Amino acid sequence: MSLEAEFVDWLKEQVGRHEALCVGIGDDGAVVHWGDADKHGGEAVVVADLLAEGTHFVLDVLGPRRVGRKALAVNLSDLAAMAAIPVAATVSVLLPRMNAQWIARELFEGLLPLAREFDVAIAGGDTNTWNGPLVIDVTAWGRLTPSGPLLRSAAQVGDRILVTGRLGGSILGRHADFQPRIDEALALRTEYGIAAGMDISDGLALDLSRLATASGVGAILDVDHVPVHDDAHRLSADTSQGPSALQRALADGEDFELLVTAPPDVAATLTARSPFAVPLTDVGEIVAAAGLSERRGDGSLRPLNPTGYLHEAEDRTP
Amino acid sequence: MSLEAEFVDWLKEQVGRHEALCVGIGDDGAVVHWGDADKHGGEAVVVADLLAEGTHFVLDVLGPRRVGRKALAVNLSDLAAMAAIPVAATVSVLLPRMNAQWIARELFEGLLPLAREFDVAIAGGDTNTWNGPLVIDVTAWGRLTPSGPLLRSAAQVGDRILVTGRLGGSILGRHADFQPRIDEALALRTEYGIAAGMDISDGLALDLSRLATASGVGAILDVDHVPVHDDAHRLSADTSQGPSALQRALADGEDFELLVTAPPDVAATLTARSPFAVPLTDVGEIVAAAGLSERRGDGSLRPLNPTGYLHEAEDRTP
Repeated sequence: MSLEAEFVDWLKEQVGRHEALCVGIGDDGAVVHWGDADKHGGEAVVVADLLAEGTHFVLDVLGPRRVGRKALAVNLSDLAAMAAIPVAATVSVLLPRMNAQWIARELFEGLLPLAREFDVAIAGGDTNTWNGPLVIDVTAWGRLTPSGPLLRSAAQVGDRILVTGRLGGSILGRHADFQPRIDEALALRTEYGIAAGMDISDGLALDLSRLATASGVGAILDVDHVPVHDDAHRLSADTSQGPSALQRALADGEDFELLVTAPPDVAATLTARSPFAVPLTDVGEIVAAAGLSERRGDGSLRPLNPTGYLHEAEDRTP
Repeated sequence: MSLEAEFVDWLKEQVGRHEALCVGIGDDGAVVHWGDADKHGGEAVVVADLLAEGTHFVLDVLGPRRVGRKALAVNLSDLAAMAAIPVAATVSVLLPRMNAQWIARELFEGLLPLAREFDVAIAGGDTNTWNGPLVIDVTAWGRLTPSGPLLRSAAQVGDRILVTGRLGGSILGRHADFQPRIDEALALRTEYGIAAGMDISDGLALDLSRLATASGVGAILDVDHVPVHDDAHRLSADTSQGPSALQRALADGEDFELLVTAPPDVAATLTARSPFAVPLTDVGEIVAAAGLSERRGDGSLRPLNPTGYLHEAEDRTP
């Protein structure tokens, strides 16, 4: 268990259950009772994501404009993962003293068009300069629809597993320039009644295992059906030693697509209708037995280690 | 004009006026329309403050527990400055890899008792480790009462100027261990109808000049009436060359007391009644002519440079 995961578990225990929290620490966002409203429309979803130069991005490679856009986009992806309508965001930054003014403006030149696109009010924040690398922390909040949130804990045995878009190889650029799946998430929640879901930020295999664990179920992934992005193919063609394109689709991070589960009839309607500009693919099913398995075209099943792919490949001696 | 102030002006222009924002960038917090409610109880106040090791605090001096408490306390002081009831906060941290776990726990051991005291729900955040100094960014949001917010822009000519507590010398410890004036701010707004105010974070003189500018008025400070904290006396007694205790009360930062203005009759009632455990002192009046003046006991007036005190003293050659 990583330091962060261990700490978050400790923190959950310390924080306890506050009566204002309908959904606490552990999902993609927290849900907070707001005002006197006793319906979902009166609940606020809050999410936070911090990006630090050198740890989460290389400033010279990405440039401050794309960093700014990404900092808001990852938060919007978290709101999508909760099926929340974005309302407002705050932006706190630590600017390197050298070029502080230019970097600050570029950050917002990247961030503001995305804010306008999703009608997000920029509600302040905190601007500081220091003798250190660039840090940007965005907090965003949204409003639930009367349908309520999309939760990691709501998957049911028998559900089909669906993903939007194509996965893997986001490092070629999509990790920064992706489109948050807000519209798709809202449609899935409100028009199709889908209750279980999250965004794929750490790879399909790992995030699916988290969703299954949160729901107290297991999952079988039909790996031959996983929609592999051209970027994953491109990367695996370039390296003879590296992971395969499928391995990348399962284990690369930062796809920022949606992972949801739906009853078979709803899933069939959705895949037949294909209601979005982005593809929607059935990649497996939720089962009672805990754990993650992969199923090949021949029907064979074997355990799937959610974090094993890239590490296995990297450790392989030629 | 500092880089930050210049940048915030640019940002205000870029962000424009969003229909969801009742109060935008420039006050102690932003006020956001929430849900369908068309009364103040349906409005959210959001504030954000980031503290970075080496820039805002010395970790070895303050210790992570006091840093954690302070990170929340400065946000609660901003909510007090808007007369908002605290509801929830998110906490994002960058932890130095060395001792990350211990630092993280200490931060929250300091923060959580204050959260409980003011009934603030900790609604998640983002936890990261890196090869850099400690950074903690807290975003807090509160709910307005039906009376609405306390604003920097609401001071009226003829108003008296009131401050809570005693000022100056907070560096001796109060800068970290202060009590956010939430209860006092709510009482001033809801029971006494006070509409103009802010918290004193950068020294009474500078913050009063900001309030006056935001309201399009000027202010006369009766400097002999300014409540000087014992810490300011202690510091000025220790240094023969440094600023006087009064200069410290006017220009030292991080008092985190309230600065409000009130019609003379309300101010008289308040100072006679002294309704709080902490003193409430009349320190001057709002006037039509722009700028800040100091008035001595003999009635003499002279211009008061809101940032001049400490710098003057430091530049003085013996």
